[in-house]
Amino acid sequence: MGFEKNIRRVVPYVPGEQPSGTDIIKLNTNENPYPPSPKTAEAIRNFASDENRLYPDPAASELVSAIASEHGIRESEVFVGVGSDDVLGMCFLTFFNGQLPVLFADITYSFYDVWAELFRIPYETVPLDDTFAIRPEDYEKPAGGIVIANPNAPTGKLLPAEDIEKIISRHPECVVIVDEAYVDFGGESALGLIRRYNNLIVVRTFSKSRSLAGVRIGYAMADEALIRCLNDVKYSYNSYTMSRLAIKAGVASISDKEYFRECLDKIIATRERSTVLLEKLGFQVIPSASNFLFATHPEKQAEDIFNYLKSRKIYVRWWNKPRIRNYLRITVGTDEQMNLLAGALADCLA
Amino acid sequence: MGFEKNIRRVVPYVPGEQPSGTDIIKLNTNENPYPPSPKTAEAIRNFASDENRLYPDPAASELVSAIASEHGIRESEVFVGVGSDDVLGMCFLTFFNGQLPVLFADITYSFYDVWAELFRIPYETVPLDDTFAIRPEDYEKPAGGIVIANPNAPTGKLLPAEDIEKIISRHPECVVIVDEAYVDFGGESALGLIRRYNNLIVVRTFSKSRSLAGVRIGYAMADEALIRCLNDVKYSYNSYTMSRLAIKAGVASISDKEYFRECLDKIIATRERSTVLLEKLGFQVIPSASNFLFATHPEKQAEDIFNYLKSRKIYVRWWNKPRIRNYLRITVGTDEQMNLLAGALADCLA
Repeated sequence: MGFEKNIRRVVPYVPGEQPSGTDIIKLNTNENPYPPSPKTAEAIRNFASDENRLYPDPAASELVSAIASEHGIRESEVFVGVGSDDVLGMCFLTFFNGQLPVLFADITYSFYDVWAELFRIPYETVPLDDTFAIRPEDYEKPAGGIVIANPNAPTGKLLPAEDIEKIISRHPECVVIVDEAYVDFGGESALGLIRRYNNLIVVRTFSKSRSLAGVRIGYAMADEALIRCLNDVKYSYNSYTMSRLAIKAGVASISDKEYFRECLDKIIATRERSTVLLEKLGFQVIPSASNFLFATHPEKQAEDIFNYLKSRKIYVRWWNKPRIRNYLRITVGTDEQMNLLAGALADCLA
Repeated sequence: MGFEKNIRRVVPYVPGEQPSGTDIIKLNTNENPYPPSPKTAEAIRNFASDENRLYPDPAASELVSAIASEHGIRESEVFVGVGSDDVLGMCFLTFFNGQLPVLFADITYSFYDVWAELFRIPYETVPLDDTFAIRPEDYEKPAGGIVIANPNAPTGKLLPAEDIEKIISRHPECVVIVDEAYVDFGGESALGLIRRYNNLIVVRTFSKSRSLAGVRIGYAMADEALIRCLNDVKYSYNSYTMSRLAIKAGVASISDKEYFRECLDKIIATRERSTVLLEKLGFQVIPSASNFLFATHPEKQAEDIFNYLKSRKIYVRWWNKPRIRNYLRITVGTDEQMNLLAGALADCLA
C-alpha cells in the first residue's frame, strides 16, 4: 500500500574488494600494475583547477576525436562513458527492448545478467563448452541481442575473429555487443567489422590497458546510427557524464603510444612467465589473451587457496559459482608481485 | 524487421550551450563565477596520479562521510552520483515503478519529463499559478511520485517549507523528491524532514554553490532504507561511478566552509544588486532564491534580447516554450559581468 511497492528491487553486482593499505598485493580486479602514462600525470598536474567551475563539454569532443583518430574511424562512430560499465549499461538500455531473450555465455562478465535484471530484459545464458570455449553454433537461434566478451572474463579465453563474424552475420535481427575490455593484451579486435555490420558494437575501456581505472573512461565504436541512439539515451539520462579531468587524462593517455605499448609488452611477458610458474606448481592454466590468468589446481580447493592467499595479504578473485568454483582468477601484476604470489602458493601447496 | 525495432527511441534533453573562448560572458548554465575553493585546487594538484591505475572506492566512503558530517546525518543516509542528474535519474529508475502518474510542475527543470520518457514512467505536469508559484492543493491526488525543485528552476522561486511538508505528508503512497540544486543560495531546505518522512529524498549538487560543475558530483539524502535501494540500483548499473579525483575534490570542497560562505554571500549580494539594475531597465524580475534571475520585459521580446546579447557575446538562456517564451534566465555572474550585461541590455532597449 505504501511507496515501497513501486521500488525497483534488484540484486546488485558485487565488485571485487578494494582493500586499502600499501602492504597488500592486489591481484583481484584486473588493474594494471604500472602507473598511467607520464603524459597523463602531466595533464592532471597541469589541469587548470579554476575551469572546474564550468560544465564539461557534454559531447566530450576532444576525447571522442582522440579515440576516433587512434582507431582510424570517424568521431560519429565513437561514444564515451564513465567506464565501460556505463557504456555497456547504456547499450543494454538502448538496444535490448525486444521480447526475445538476449544471449550471453553462462560463464562471462557477471554484470550482463545484472543489467538485464535491472532493465527487465529477457535473457538466456548459453553454456560454454567443456574447455570454456564459445561455440558459435550454440547461438543459432533468434535473439533480442547478443553479448560476447572477447577475450572472455574470467577465463581469459579468446574467440577467433571468424567465429565472432559468424555470430554477427547470422543475427541481423539484433544488436551484437563485443566487449573488448581486455583485447589490448592479445586479442583480435572485431573493430574492423563495424562498417560491414551495422548491428555490431565494440566496447573498450581505459581501465585495464591504459591504467586509468580510477578516472572512469570507457567507449563504444559502431555504425553512426547506433552511436546516435546511444547518445540520445545518454542525453536523456545525464548530459555531462565525462568530467573535465577524465577528458584531459584520456586524451593524454592516447597521445603516449610508446608508453602504452611498453606496458602491454611487459604485462604480456609477465603473463607468459607466470603461466609457466603456476604450471610448475601443478596448476592447470587456461591460455590467456588478457591481463589475468584463470587457473585450477587438481589437489587443492580454490576456495582454500583464495583464503590462504588473503591471509598472506595477496588478493585474487574467487567465485562460489557453478563450473568455476574450483578456479581462481589472478590478475597479472609485476614480475616481483608474481614471484611473491608463486612463493605463497608454494607454501600453500606444501 | 531488423534490430531497429528494439531500439529505445527518445527525445533527449538539450543542455545549454558550452561555447569556448575567453572573451564571452557565460550566464547561461548557472555556473558559479568564482573558482572552486583553493583547498580543492590543492587536492587536485596533490592528487597522486599513480593511484589512478586503481579502481576508486565503489562506496566513495570518504566523500559520503564528509557530506554526512557536513549535514549532521549518518553515512547510511547519503548517496552520491555523477552530478545531481545522475542522482535524479537513478531516483526515477529506482522509485517510480507504479501505474499512477508522477507529478511535477509544468514549468520546472526540463529533465524531469525526459527521465520519465526514458524509463517509460507515466507522468502528469501540474501548472504553476499565474505568479509561477506551486500550489500544494493542486497535488492532492494519488501519485506514483512527486518531484519538486525548490527553489524552482528556471523561475528561482521558493516554496515555503510548510508547503513542502504539506505535500510530503499527504503522499505516504509515493516517494517525494525535493531537488535542492540551488538551495544554498537562499532556500529553506527540506533536509530536516528526512527522519520524519521515510518517503522523502532531498537532492543536492556540487555544481552550482561549490563551483565544481566540471568535476560531476551530486548527492541524495534520505531515510537509510531508500538510500539502500538507490545503492542497489547503482551497483546494478556501474559500481564505480565516482572517480578518485571527484572523491578527493569533493572532500576538499566541504572542508573549506569559510570560502564556501564567502562565495555564496558575494553571489547573493550581486543577485540583489542585479535585480535592481534589471528593474531600472524596465524588466519584471521574479524574486530569486537561487543564483539566477528570471526576467521579462514588457516592451521587448525575450527572443530578440537573447539574440542581441549573443551578438555581444553574452550568453543567457531562453526557451521557446509555452508560458515562459517571453522570459530570460540569467545566471548571476560577478558584479563586473552583471554591469556589462546591464550595459548591453541598455543598448538593446535604447
